[in-house]
This record gives sequence, C-alpha cells and structure tokens, in this order.
Amino acid sequence: MLVPRLGLVGIGLMGASLSLALRQAGAVGRVIGLARSEHTRQEALARGIVDEIAPSLQALAGAVDVLVLCVPTLSVETVLAELGELPAGLVVTDVASVKGNVVEAARRVWGVLPPGFVPGHPIAGSEKSGVTAGKADLYRQHKVILTPDERTAPEALALVTAMWEAAGAEVVHMGVEEHDRVLAFTSHLPHVLAFALVDALSRQQTSVDIFRFAAGGFRDFTRIAASDPQMWHDIVLANRQAVLAGLDAFEVQVAALRQAISNGDSDTLLDTFRHAKAERERFGAMLAARQAGADHSAAGE
Amino acid sequence: MLVPRLGLVGIGLMGASLSLALRQAGAVGRVIGLARSEHTRQEALARGIVDEIAPSLQALAGAVDVLVLCVPTLSVETVLAELGELPAGLVVTDVASVKGNVVEAARRVWGVLPPGFVPGHPIAGSEKSGVTAGKADLYRQHKVILTPDERTAPEALALVTAMWEAAGAEVVHMGVEEHDRVLAFTSHLPHVLAFALVDALSRQQTSVDIFRFAAGGFRDFTRIAASDPQMWHDIVLANRQAVLAGLDAFEVQVAALRQAISNGDSDTLLDTFRHAKAERERFGAMLAARQAGADHSAAGE
Repeated sequence: MLVPRLGLVGIGLMGASLSLALRQAGAVGRVIGLARSEHTRQEALARGIVDEIAPSLQALAGAVDVLVLCVPTLSVETVLAELGELPAGLVVTDVASVKGNVVEAARRVWGVLPPGFVPGHPIAGSEKSGVTAGKADLYRQHKVILTPDERTAPEALALVTAMWEAAGAEVVHMGVEEHDRVLAFTSHLPHVLAFALVDALSRQQTSVDIFRFAAGGFRDFTRIAASDPQMWHDIVLANRQAVLAGLDAFEVQVAALRQAISNGDSDTLLDTFRHAKAERERFGAMLAARQAGADHSAAGE
Repeated sequence: MLVPRLGLVGIGLMGASLSLALRQAGAVGRVIGLARSEHTRQEALARGIVDEIAPSLQALAGAVDVLVLCVPTLSVETVLAELGELPAGLVVTDVASVKGNVVEAARRVWGVLPPGFVPGHPIAGSEKSGVTAGKADLYRQHKVILTPDERTAPEALALVTAMWEAAGAEVVHMGVEEHDRVLAFTSHLPHVLAFALVDALSRQQTSVDIFRFAAGGFRDFTRIAASDPQMWHDIVLANRQAVLAGLDAFEVQVAALRQAISNGDSDTLLDTFRHAKAERERFGAMLAARQAGADHSAAGE
C-alpha cells in the first residue's frame, strides 16, 4: 500500500479526484479529510471520497502518512501557520497553482522549507469545482510539477512522485522560479488577457451587440474568461512578479505588431504570424500525441 | 430558380461551399467559375462545384446573374478594376472579411458604389482552405453581414440576401464602419493577440520547453494562432484603423489590470474578472442557443 493513510485539507475538485484516482489504483488505504462546509463533508463521506472527517488540522496531521493541502492558493500560508511543527515522518504536499508564494510562506513559518514538505502543482482542472466534480481520471496523462529544494528529503520526494504517478500523472521536477515563470506564460497570462479582452469588448459603444457577431475563434479565445474570478485573483496576486514579467514580454510583441500594422510593414507581420503558426502547430502536435496516449491508456483499462 | 446563373471568382472554401449549399437548396442553375490554378479548376469541375470554367473575368461577368468575388481581401480591388463597367442587371457581391477597403476600392474604380454591388461578409470559415474543403453546410446558422449604402439597388440587396438565406445563413445589414469595428474586436484583434502571445512565448529563454507545460486553456486561447498568416496579414492591413483602435481599447484594460496586479488591488481585479465572466457567459448562452438552432435545423432535414 503506497499511502496507507492519506489526509486531505480541503475536499474540492482536486482533493476528491486524487482520492478517487488513488482508490481506483489501489494505492491508498484510509482517506481522512477536513472541509469547512458541512455539505462538502457529507458529500465526501457519502461518495466514499473520504472514510472519515478529522476533528482538527492537528489531529489530521497526526493521523496520516501524506497530507495534501487542497486549499485556495492564498490560503496555503494560513494552513501552514496553523499546522506548526510537522509530526516526524509526515510528508506534506500541496496543489496550488503558484509555488513561489507557497515556498515563501513555508519559510516564514518554519525558517526553511521542511524536508517533508514537497510543493506540488498538478496541471489539471475543470470548469466545474467542488467535491461533486471529483473524478478518478482528472490527472490521467496530465503533468504534475514538483518543486523540491536541496533540503527536501529524497524519500518524501519519492513518495509524492509515486503518489501522483499512481493517480495517472506524469511527474516533473522543476525549480520554483522556473515553474512560476512557465505557468505565468502558459496559463496565468492567457487568463488575464482573456478577461481583459472580454471586458474591453463589453465596454465598447456600438449600436449593435458585438457578441452577436462573434464566431468560433472568439469562442475559443475567450473560453477561459468564464473561469472562477476569485481563484484567478488569487493566482495572479500570488504570482505577481512572473505575471507582470510575462505581461511585459507580451506587450513587447504587441507593440511590434502594432507598429507593423500601423506602418503597413508586411514583412514583420508575415514573419511573426508564420513563426507563431509554426510554434502553435508544434504545440498542437505535442498535445495530440499526449492525448492519443491518454486515450490509449484509458481504452486499455 | 433564385439564381439561374451564378459566377464564382475564385473557387476556394468560400465559393465552393456557396455553390454546394445553393445546389442542395435547389436555388441555383448553372455555376460558372474562374480560378488561377489548373488544379482548382479540375477539382471544381470533378466535384460538380462548377459546371464550367469561364475563359475570362469579362466573359464570366457577361454570362451570369450574380457574380460572387471569393478572392483574398487585398485582391478585391484588382478584380474590381479588371471588371470595369458592370453589365446592366449584373449583381455583384463579395466575401471579404473587411468591408471598408472593399467599398473604398469600389469608389476608386467607379467613383461611387455601383447600385448592383452589395458588399458582403459571411462570418464562417474553417481551418481548412481550398476547393476540396468546400461543404454544403458551411454557412448554415452562420451570420452573413451585408453593408449596402444608400445607392444600392433594393432588388440587388434582396437577391443577395435571399441567396445567402438559401445557403442557410442569417443575413444582417450593417454600416461599413460598424462592420469593420465589430469584426476588429471579435475576430481580427483576437487573432493578433493570439499570434503575439505564441510568438512572445516561443522567444522566452528557459531551460524547459514552455509548451510542454501548457494545458487546455492555452490550447483554446491560442488555437487561432494556427490560422493562415497571409490571410490574416491581409485582413489586419485592410482593416488597419479599426484593428489599431481595438488594440488601443484592449491596451487600456490591460494597463488597468497590470496596475491592479502590481498594486495588489483586489477590488479592481475581482470586479474586472467578474464582469468579464458574466459577459462571457452571456455570449456562451447566445452561442449555445444559436447552435441548438443549427442542430435542430440540420436534424430536421
């Protein structure tokens, strides 16, 4: 049994899906959870996502082998402070989308990143949220990035890695700063831009409803503008420096394109569009290969 | 028979799909086409998209009731100049994505917009292009915007409207400037931003391949960055003023969000994100209703 006793702090989409995936893989024994809402606790018990509800964070930390913090990004520090000294042998990880602020929070609480704490980020999600959205295949063929440092205990890192692999994920280890920079570009920045475009568009004064004339390209481009505002507020503030740096790099390209459009500079426009198309097609092929792997794997069960 | 003799100048995705749709609706008699490439001409004949190939633009204009210009945006003026004086009774329309430059081109050629020329823009497309990509349902439940002016002959406008309706589209009449402003926001600007983001991202110096860590949100947001570079080069230059104005309005919102992120201004972030989410969901509901209509209509055939 990989994880005899698993603790979930917060039982939403992420925690519930982890429990279901590990149960399906036979990799977990008892699952104990903690949730603020009575409704969540009842649903988690009724759906077999947890076997019991812990009376307190301390009790939970003392009763499990691996503790997974599945709380909103900006709430991680509060939980770490409340945890205090980690029980010997306890392995802690989290699922927050930004890692720099989590590591800083850990250092504020403990002075250093405790050897048993392995910061993590599963790159998986859903437009749905909450315990009822949990599903066993949420992490299948998705990446989980872990950002250990030189103090991280090798056995803690190995256990968290094995846990996510048992849940079907591909685990990658990366530096904290690199994680936050990469995610700023591939996820946080696109969300900010989609929110900004829809907001700008809805403020236009025209006699027609602009949205009536939008088609598939616009639909795809702005889909992420329907994401949870509070969650994205937390993420962009938690990853403030990398998001601002990403925004600046993006603005350099927008300014160059703006000038090329203004000057009728065909060469710059064509070069940029062609380069972007080639890169996007490279990404598309990469994603298609990954999904083919996922389908194959699912079909093989 | 709505259109006894239809002429297509250019037999790519748009023209081929129009022919197939009108044939399916029994709304067209003979279809005569003109194409630069021998391969396109042979495919169009072999697939029954056209009944014959015209020897020249003038011959085509003299042989049909409705002439549809299905050439790239920046090529419309060349075709109009080559057309010269329109034969009496001929109705001409086009499918270019920008209307201001088409109307200006017409005025340069003829001094005024000829009463028989009805500028048009079907808001439909595909990632595929060329005669072999043509399909009879491309325009079904899609919008076609026509931008007549006060000189446009009512019977010409009525015929072009009826033709697109026969092809399954919903026809809307709009002013040229309004069309170009609306499309700049809902289509041209998103393409420029998607190209800019993918380009900026691919220029980042990191030790990892950023694309490896991108997920579904990024995939959707950047899908349009795989669009045809030459076509989008033409469109943004043809609609230069409206695209630049849209870019400026977008940049105002981006600057406001940038400042809010930098200052940790939660209220501004949450207000903007919530407003954008509500608007995006309103658009999503509108699109879903439209698609439900399309499905219903298709199922009812």
